[in-house]
Amino acid sequence: MNFASDNVHGVHPKVLQALSDCNEGAMGAYGSDPITARAEAVYRELLDAPEAVVRFVATGTGANALVCAQLSPSFGRIYCHDSAHIHRDECSAPEFYSHGAKLVPLQGEHGKFSPDTLAEAIRFGKAGSLNDGRNAMVSITNATEWGTTYAPAEVAALAAVAHEAGLPLHMDGARFANAVAGLGCDAADLTQRVGVDALCFGGTKNGAMGAEAVIFFDPAHAADFDYRRKQAGQVWSKQRYLAAQMLALAEGGLWLDLARHANAAATRLGQGIEQAGGTLVAPVQANEIFARLPAEAHERAISHGAAYHVWQDQPPAKGEPVTVRLVTSWATRDEDVSRLLDLLRGA
Amino acid sequence: MNFASDNVHGVHPKVLQALSDCNEGAMGAYGSDPITARAEAVYRELLDAPEAVVRFVATGTGANALVCAQLSPSFGRIYCHDSAHIHRDECSAPEFYSHGAKLVPLQGEHGKFSPDTLAEAIRFGKAGSLNDGRNAMVSITNATEWGTTYAPAEVAALAAVAHEAGLPLHMDGARFANAVAGLGCDAADLTQRVGVDALCFGGTKNGAMGAEAVIFFDPAHAADFDYRRKQAGQVWSKQRYLAAQMLALAEGGLWLDLARHANAAATRLGQGIEQAGGTLVAPVQANEIFARLPAEAHERAISHGAAYHVWQDQPPAKGEPVTVRLVTSWATRDEDVSRLLDLLRGA
Amino acid sequence: MNFASDNVHGVHPKVLQALSDCNEGAMGAYGSDPITARAEAVYRELLDAPEAVVRFVATGTGANALVCAQLSPSFGRIYCHDSAHIHRDECSAPEFYSHGAKLVPLQGEHGKFSPDTLAEAIRFGKAGSLNDGRNAMVSITNATEWGTTYAPAEVAALAAVAHEAGLPLHMDGARFANAVAGLGCDAADLTQRVGVDALCFGGTKNGAMGAEAVIFFDPAHAADFDYRRKQAGQVWSKQRYLAAQMLALAEGGLWLDLARHANAAATRLGQGIEQAGGTLVAPVQANEIFARLPAEAHERAISHGAAYHVWQDQPPAKGEPVTVRLVTSWATRDEDVSRLLDLLRGA
Amino acid sequence: MNFASDNVHGVHPKVLQALSDCNEGAMGAYGSDPITARAEAVYRELLDAPEAVVRFVATGTGANALVCAQLSPSFGRIYCHDSAHIHRDECSAPEFYSHGAKLVPLQGEHGKFSPDTLAEAIRFGKAGSLNDGRNAMVSITNATEWGTTYAPAEVAALAAVAHEAGLPLHMDGARFANAVAGLGCDAADLTQRVGVDALCFGGTKNGAMGAEAVIFFDPAHAADFDYRRKQAGQVWSKQRYLAAQMLALAEGGLWLDLARHANAAATRLGQGIEQAGGTLVAPVQANEIFARLPAEAHERAISHGAAYHVWQDQPPAKGEPVTVRLVTSWATRDEDVSRLLDLLRGA
Repeated sequence: MNFASDNVHGVHPKVLQALSDCNEGAMGAYGSDPITARAEAVYRELLDAPEAVVRFVATGTGANALVCAQLSPSFGRIYCHDSAHIHRDECSAPEFYSHGAKLVPLQGEHGKFSPDTLAEAIRFGKAGSLNDGRNAMVSITNATEWGTTYAPAEVAALAAVAHEAGLPLHMDGARFANAVAGLGCDAADLTQRVGVDALCFGGTKNGAMGAEAVIFFDPAHAADFDYRRKQAGQVWSKQRYLAAQMLALAEGGLWLDLARHANAAATRLGQGIEQAGGTLVAPVQANEIFARLPAEAHERAISHGAAYHVWQDQPPAKGEPVTVRLVTSWATRDEDVSRLLDLLRGA
Repeated sequence: MNFASDNVHGVHPKVLQALSDCNEGAMGAYGSDPITARAEAVYRELLDAPEAVVRFVATGTGANALVCAQLSPSFGRIYCHDSAHIHRDECSAPEFYSHGAKLVPLQGEHGKFSPDTLAEAIRFGKAGSLNDGRNAMVSITNATEWGTTYAPAEVAALAAVAHEAGLPLHMDGARFANAVAGLGCDAADLTQRVGVDALCFGGTKNGAMGAEAVIFFDPAHAADFDYRRKQAGQVWSKQRYLAAQMLALAEGGLWLDLARHANAAATRLGQGIEQAGGTLVAPVQANEIFARLPAEAHERAISHGAAYHVWQDQPPAKGEPVTVRLVTSWATRDEDVSRLLDLLRGA
Repeated sequence: MNFASDNVHGVHPKVLQALSDCNEGAMGAYGSDPITARAEAVYRELLDAPEAVVRFVATGTGANALVCAQLSPSFGRIYCHDSAHIHRDECSAPEFYSHGAKLVPLQGEHGKFSPDTLAEAIRFGKAGSLNDGRNAMVSITNATEWGTTYAPAEVAALAAVAHEAGLPLHMDGARFANAVAGLGCDAADLTQRVGVDALCFGGTKNGAMGAEAVIFFDPAHAADFDYRRKQAGQVWSKQRYLAAQMLALAEGGLWLDLARHANAAATRLGQGIEQAGGTLVAPVQANEIFARLPAEAHERAISHGAAYHVWQDQPPAKGEPVTVRLVTSWATRDEDVSRLLDLLRGA
Repeated sequence: MNFASDNVHGVHPKVLQALSDCNEGAMGAYGSDPITARAEAVYRELLDAPEAVVRFVATGTGANALVCAQLSPSFGRIYCHDSAHIHRDECSAPEFYSHGAKLVPLQGEHGKFSPDTLAEAIRFGKAGSLNDGRNAMVSITNATEWGTTYAPAEVAALAAVAHEAGLPLHMDGARFANAVAGLGCDAADLTQRVGVDALCFGGTKNGAMGAEAVIFFDPAHAADFDYRRKQAGQVWSKQRYLAAQMLALAEGGLWLDLARHANAAATRLGQGIEQAGGTLVAPVQANEIFARLPAEAHERAISHGAAYHVWQDQPPAKGEPVTVRLVTSWATRDEDVSRLLDLLRGA
């Protein structure tokens, strides 16, 4: 009954198998191997982006921080949601990689900001003097840190605002598969077709061991990116094992199947929580549930071994409802969902 | 017949197996899992260093650059050999991670510098004004970039010079196993017992997929290192898979067996090359051979599919001997060595 | 009638004279001259801090950013007010100099945050995981960016919270003289006696050409600072001319006389604005006035050549009161204050 | 008799006067003042470069490091002479400002490298893998750190090599005036007409207090430079005082007169040293003399109060000739030259 995060779970068997399958023989190092070439091609195809530059790294923080450094100068302003992982949860890796760029947090409900909010912020940055730094890029997370999704039309609207100001749009897709699965759209519909310029396509949270794809839809945005990645210590000598993971996820749509599984578990969990007297804090649109649980339900669940995070700044007050975050994954078992719901209901 | 590098080969089956073996169930993320705890303990034991801080990262460049940033301020001088990987082959990752530290290259035969050379350089740095930066640390590679090794007494002599000036000594051990195997000593004898303060214990070149241990023998040197590693995007959420690789190498002395295999192949190759009319450019003390090959021998080998690097600045002149680098590994097959030697001999 | 900022005015004659007075003869470069030694001693005395390390730089941004880099690692959290100059107005120089430190903005009325707000923020940072970065330092501005001051007891209370968490307290004193003058206290009473660890003692806004003193009260905080300053390009070869400026300000209490003059003009202007139907947005405690002016008063003043900044995010709506910032300085003439007040009153 | 450096001397009276002359009244801050505008125009004219972007900063290290950061990415290779100030004497400020660029030192007699040496180094960098970093820029110092000069044709030849590889050419002109004076050419002949892309036009060593002009001949090279300068803390709020210094030097050709004076003193000193039994280590082409002095002559000079630097790595051996550096300046008096020569001759 571990709902602490999607990264507490292991690696999908097909991903593990892929590591064995590519193990034979000598291959070129640092990405000059055929597995990497194939994986890059597969992701270009998956995103219907024949010109895109695709590169693989092992961590989401590495992927996001590299994109920030690639698209923003040290004196840049990077607009993101106040709850964005790049702003809140990466130990200021984007600032480090970019050598000082300013993350400018925007407000908005359920982890999303609106085109108007973005436009207003960009206007301020543009009107500003040197003191404010230079408008550099916009970053959204999809699915968001509150388990919600930006639909293609919403992404398009944000992209329009960003592009009008000459700013590229980055999508932190640590849970990109869950967003696509939740929205029932195409990967391309959610990205290059609606103006996304750079995508971090997450593998790790979705069954990989440690693998993310960094994708620049316009090769001009990727100029010299290989040097940057190398200098950051994010290039593997045995790159085939990064590529093989991402290949396995792409193969036969495994990435989507796994995300659908996780999302379905989240939906069921969210509905069950409401039935058990809890309240959803944000709509469940991907694989995360943010909810307020009755105190006794929470205590019962915890005391019987359920694992998830309390998600409030203050320690819970005695007897008061507790705000929590639960995350489902490709590895979440139906019986664990059932068991947790039983506990919450006091059944 | 691929002798281009030790990183063109795959992953040892036992390492692959270990990835599967640790796959079951949910575990704490970001290193709070039992596999990581066990692996850290095993390396402390292997190095007879119960107080040491052990951390795992996926790339050698990441490992080295993190240590440089940890032990040198941005205005520090880092003394290393002119051929050091950190100076020549990491796209200035140490400068990037440390935000500007100066790598000061020292001369010396076969990839090694002497205590006198080091002492002289440190003296200059110490006498210098602010303009020169501040003496910060010393880094040696063992086995070196020229396939030679520093014996324990040699390390001790360098450590004495470094410590007298208050500088910590770092060992880039991308091929540490090959050094230990070549010297026939103990891992501890080559490190903490002779004054090494920080060790990058390489796994990748020795049969891992992508795994290195960063070890600080004095915990004071590791202060806040976890933040630094996180900010650099070098912390895996599913850390167990990094740890499991290093554990598999440690288990039953696999790391040493693999290095001995590679070294033996190198020794045989080196001797065979001399018999075939080649000349060794540096003594073969680990798993790399630097040699001058007769032009026709080289051309014959290449034309029959042997892969290795020409190792000279100028393109080879027609008919002149060619300086080359050959690297053996855990995966080098005896028959490949035989075949290459046959080719070189014109047999 | 230029109230745009205190840095639109020139250099006080005594400061200019000091530049001539120290011009004769050869002197040691890079700070090894007797003027610098004397100026450092004078500021140690002025602050009753015989052990303090005093250094001079030419710009306030340089001074603040150097202190941030000195007291925070790249993965540090720097707590400051949401309106802090280091957060809002230095083009992310602190992030650049520190290589990525996170400025964590705190809320509070009139440019000041409370000890409780600080304690709460520090608690969150401490409880946090690696993702949040490490608590590193606290920075306050005095006088604040809203023209208010922290009194000695207020500074002491913030210092107590910071120190309990092991964090040093920095005071951005771009308008330190105005704070001391406004509070009627001693420079030492507002700094080292109440727990300030590092002070940027501004000269530029108070009649210097371009000169600030960076002061670390505990020499341990200043370790290697000279290297850092050099690497940042903030060391002058002809350092005497930086020192001479600061000496001239210290001499005979000129710094305080000038600040008192500026403050008095601000007080008079603030009172006059209220009498003219304006409203003060923040109390006038130093040399800045933030006020809402009736639209017609504002338009009259502007159209007659008064210079000051509109201080609101949105363009003023027709006929609505306008929020403005006015800054007085050592060079503000009484007749300019009178003239502006006449205009505002429609006299 | 101070020949330690050109920065041990004070400020030329006309420069001091200019500071007073521009002191009256309020002016726009951060460079939006008429003095700055005029000074920028004057330097564009002086260099016959109507499109050039001209900016002023206070220190040579700041100027050079800003240019390096502007023209090189963090993973760039910057080619310079082994004795270059940016490589040897700026506490790795270029690495810090650029976040890790690699200074690649080139060899060559008397502080100069040849087009062939440069071409060879660039070729290596180009052929290299990611490991080597990316070729980024070329930097020469003129006059060099060995008191010699690159003539216009020599600069043109280096520029041709650099430009063929797509690299911009930077000239560190801390002693640019001395180079122009020594060569008897035009400022434009030595820069934009022969392919220099960025020039640091030094004022400080030539009679200013602390002022350098950074000039980009192609505005495209200066994109966003104002943000970079701001973030580095190198923008003065009272910018007029930086500009006024540079204006005073330009006025009536003062900069050239001062440099000619310094050069003439150097020439006389160099000739006198040879007559006194010393040997010149490098030709005297600007305002620095590098010479080997007989031991007794050196001791006599020092013991009578002459100040200059011993310029050898090892402490001088008893009775052996001593290699020294002497620097003349705008402020060097004829009688000091005479007195030193008398001492050296034992007169």
